[in-house]
Amino acid sequence: MSHAMKITGATRLYPIIGDPIAQVRSPETISGGFAAKGINAACIPVHVPVDRFDVIVPALLSIPNVDGALVTVPFKTRIVAFADRLGEAAQTIGALNALRREADGSWTGDMFDGAGFVRGAERKGERIRGRRVALFGAGGAGSAIAHACAKAGVQSIDIIDKDASRAAALAAKLNAAVPECWVQAATTVSRHTDMIVNASPVGMRDDDGMPGEIPRLSADTLVGDVVIAQAPTALIRHAIACGCRWVDGRDMHAGQVDAITNFFCHGTRSG
Amino acid sequence: MSHAMKITGATRLYPIIGDPIAQVRSPETISGGFAAKGINAACIPVHVPVDRFDVIVPALLSIPNVDGALVTVPFKTRIVAFADRLGEAAQTIGALNALRREADGSWTGDMFDGAGFVRGAERKGERIRGRRVALFGAGGAGSAIAHACAKAGVQSIDIIDKDASRAAALAAKLNAAVPECWVQAATTVSRHTDMIVNASPVGMRDDDGMPGEIPRLSADTLVGDVVIAQAPTALIRHAIACGCRWVDGRDMHAGQVDAITNFFCHGTRSG
Repeated sequence: MSHAMKITGATRLYPIIGDPIAQVRSPETISGGFAAKGINAACIPVHVPVDRFDVIVPALLSIPNVDGALVTVPFKTRIVAFADRLGEAAQTIGALNALRREADGSWTGDMFDGAGFVRGAERKGERIRGRRVALFGAGGAGSAIAHACAKAGVQSIDIIDKDASRAAALAAKLNAAVPECWVQAATTVSRHTDMIVNASPVGMRDDDGMPGEIPRLSADTLVGDVVIAQAPTALIRHAIACGCRWVDGRDMHAGQVDAITNFFCHGTRSG
Repeated sequence: MSHAMKITGATRLYPIIGDPIAQVRSPETISGGFAAKGINAACIPVHVPVDRFDVIVPALLSIPNVDGALVTVPFKTRIVAFADRLGEAAQTIGALNALRREADGSWTGDMFDGAGFVRGAERKGERIRGRRVALFGAGGAGSAIAHACAKAGVQSIDIIDKDASRAAALAAKLNAAVPECWVQAATTVSRHTDMIVNASPVGMRDDDGMPGEIPRLSADTLVGDVVIAQAPTALIRHAIACGCRWVDGRDMHAGQVDAITNFFCHGTRSG
């Protein structure tokens, strides 16, 4: 992602909006994705305080050289009101993280957190289809990953969340949206599991330990962790110790860059 | 100005607003100025349609990581309403092209079109002080250059504009603001003139010719032309033919980059 970035008067803008904003990586990675495609466009960080969302966001979307936007915490649900249509993931989850302007001026939104995870795994040569998944965390990231895994053909997903009703609600939603995948709330990792994903915040702090009780894993278990930390999380260290292949938060972000850049560039806008 | 630009989540933004916007150079030059100073800030092009100015501009200025703005045609006068205080040039001319946010959240504006011209000349080693100037054009650029030249110590300015009342009004304004410089409306280039500046649009088209009747020039005459064109304008070609030193639109823009970058970086904002 070291493509030279050059912003000119003709550059098309894709603000990433969030609060806070300084920590986001998309200005580098998404802009790098545009540069790699030879497109004069850039992702720029726009700090939107929660109490100014309703003033700043409509104004940003009315700027003619803004062709899309990325959305991060805490606006992934709130931004849905600005989309004229939603992709399937966004519609199922009720949240989105990318918006693009169509040729007619309308806005299409979709959620790429889950697609980023799946694509990040595929980029490392991992198979997703047919897996029996144990997923920790039924929040925003967990919902998106569960949906993307179901769409990618996993056999089953056990959703483990300390809020059991949240896990059950997500399971019900996914069973309705993707009936060919079996999703249920669970409290432990079943011995049939061959893919474990942490989509909870556990692991963000060095001393966090595991997101739950994790058994000794067979080497064919694929391990995923959404956390982006300086050092490998306890879960990823465990995967390595068990000889497993793994996908971490950086892989997921890299996979999402592809997916989002494609989403932006395959729009029907006239430019 | 080939410093590597890198936009991260922590980059501070300085939108340049105008309609149209694709032709502006500041995203490259001003961002280059920030990069040369080692500051993580960027100038980004923001197209503001005239009829959305009142929605987009207040929203932009309320974004916490927007620390300033550049303003180009047709908003240099209209933007004045957003400044809490004005530098002397902006106050005299009633227009501004740069705004910066102060530590208390208020906005200071100033006009650098004229300072850019003077600094552009100085960067080429030219003396401004003591000159007897003939200036073509009493519009926005002419007003700014006349004010900056008066402040830089020229002895006199003859303002030549096909709208004689506009030239007279500018002369009156400058005589009041900078009494030590003698400014008057004129219709021809006096033989005492040792500096000629074109601040009219004449020269933007290849076949435009001269901005007015220009005599044979002595080699100590300094010639300036605000026009940025592919090839030297007829006035600059005449200067070269007469053995004169000259300052063109590119020199003026380069001089303005220094002045505006300093204005932005010498603000009192806390960052």
